Amino acid sequence: MTLRAVVVGIPGVGKSTVVDKVVAGYKGAKLVNFGTVMFEEALARKWVKGRDEMRKMPVERQKRLQKAAASKIARMTGEMVLVDTHLFIRTDEGFWPGLPFEVVRAMKPTHLVLVVAKPEEIAKRRSADSTRVRDALTNESLLEELELAKSFLTASSTLTGAPMTIISNDEGKQAEVAGRILGMLEKAAGR
Amino acid sequence: MTLRAVVVGIPGVGKSTVVDKVVAGYKGAKLVNFGTVMFEEALARKWVKGRDEMRKMPVERQKRLQKAAASKIARMTGEMVLVDTHLFIRTDEGFWPGLPFEVVRAMKPTHLVLVVAKPEEIAKRRSADSTRVRDALTNESLLEELELAKSFLTASSTLTGAPMTIISNDEGKQAEVAGRILGMLEKAAGR
Amino acid sequence: MTLRAVVVGIPGVGKSTVVDKVVAGYKGAKLVNFGTVMFEEALARKWVKGRDEMRKMPVERQKRLQKAAASKIARMTGEMVLVDTHLFIRTDEGFWPGLPFEVVRAMKPTHLVLVVAKPEEIAKRRSADSTRVRDALTNESLLEELELAKSFLTASSTLTGAPMTIISNDEGKQAEVAGRILGMLEKAAGR
Repeated sequence: MTLRAVVVGIPGVGKSTVVDKVVAGYKGAKLVNFGTVMFEEALARKWVKGRDEMRKMPVERQKRLQKAAASKIARMTGEMVLVDTHLFIRTDEGFWPGLPFEVVRAMKPTHLVLVVAKPEEIAKRRSADSTRVRDALTNESLLEELELAKSFLTASSTLTGAPMTIISNDEGKQAEVAGRILGMLEKAAGR
Repeated sequence: MTLRAVVVGIPGVGKSTVVDKVVAGYKGAKLVNFGTVMFEEALARKWVKGRDEMRKMPVERQKRLQKAAASKIARMTGEMVLVDTHLFIRTDEGFWPGLPFEVVRAMKPTHLVLVVAKPEEIAKRRSADSTRVRDALTNESLLEELELAKSFLTASSTLTGAPMTIISNDEGKQAEVAGRILGMLEKAAGR
Repeated sequence: MTLRAVVVGIPGVGKSTVVDKVVAGYKGAKLVNFGTVMFEEALARKWVKGRDEMRKMPVERQKRLQKAAASKIARMTGEMVLVDTHLFIRTDEGFWPGLPFEVVRAMKPTHLVLVVAKPEEIAKRRSADSTRVRDALTNESLLEELELAKSFLTASSTLTGAPMTIISNDEGKQAEVAGRILGMLEKAAGR
């Protein structure tokens, strides 16, 4: 059986570093970025030429791509597929769910992992990250996003039956956090 | 495409005023009260003669009416349909979900908007409202209802794929709050 | 109509005592432990010989048993069936949902009741309970579990359309708490 661990977390929790360490430490692991799979599906349909066109697509097409990408991920084989994605995306129209009903059920995750961090550390990481445009939010807004993330995670767990883990990524503890996720996945795989 | 914005909020957040301002400010908007549509569906089936009989109907009939009303709303055309409804209703049997699975999926909302307010302001509005019988709740109970509302909203967003917005309606800011909702809907409509 | 009240709560909230009092006080009530029904279903399929083998079964079999048990409970007749179960179970792989989509919908609950308690009282009950191995958690972890429980409850209520009640079981108030649940169920039954 292929493990499909879906790792989520709001921007600035340090998810990428953790994800990279988990993939590097798990023999036979495959890292899958959900947005990239969506982009590949869009390219295959000739709906876009470049990644910057993705956000400008009509909502209906975006939803079809989300579902197609999820189904593709569910069919991936191997020891372990680690899916890097978002529970929700902050936009001018509100929070778009990243794992709505049809998508999360099509993806068939075996494990759901939410990386969280202290609001102050999230704010620090966001301001230090000059490569991406990230919203500077108040402490209160960050706390609200962290709460929403738990609520979305619970919905995903209920809809898929997959167990969910919430891991706190404190400053300088990325290796430890990755180690805990690794230990959990290895145990699940019976290694 | 018809926008279907579902606006919810616990009693006392000042939702009605905000909803009226949004509808007045959006050209071609249609205001739909979910309870009224349910009542019309009940009348058409000759299940009730007056609105006061609605709450006395067997649960099964209430559920059928909820679903019929939701489907009717999903078929409504025009520029924008603004649905005024409840995420949940406090009763002696507990909190009844206002947007359960079949209902929210039949309604096909394009946007979900939750209006919240500070507990003190909710309490003030509830006690000032002599036209309706409203539960006087402790600050703690109001905070719990506000938290539950976010959780129910997340479930609705996950089940429908619609983006969700949480807007704080502070004292004397109704026009500003309505303006933010209007801006969001106009952007979604490409106006 | 048979009432099907599903009572949940994290370990240490004092659920068992409350459940027993409710069943004793409700004429014609039947107490059903979800785990026991799952075990009976496993025995009938000859998948296990003893209860200790239940946790060692492959996940797929556990899921099939969960669904079979839920369907069996939905078919039970009588005045009132009170189901004692878990919203989620803390394991090394994370929190397993106790009432995932297919299970909670197959069970068709008419009422959902979550028993909560103050973290200090939960901690006290857990440490006093020498008959079961229970995790000793920090106050913060207990608060997180209590929050997750509300979120899982909201998902169950949304997926089934059943009303949900959150009842605080304060020290020495079990009889009062049971009385409130009894009053609610009797009212629902029209007694």
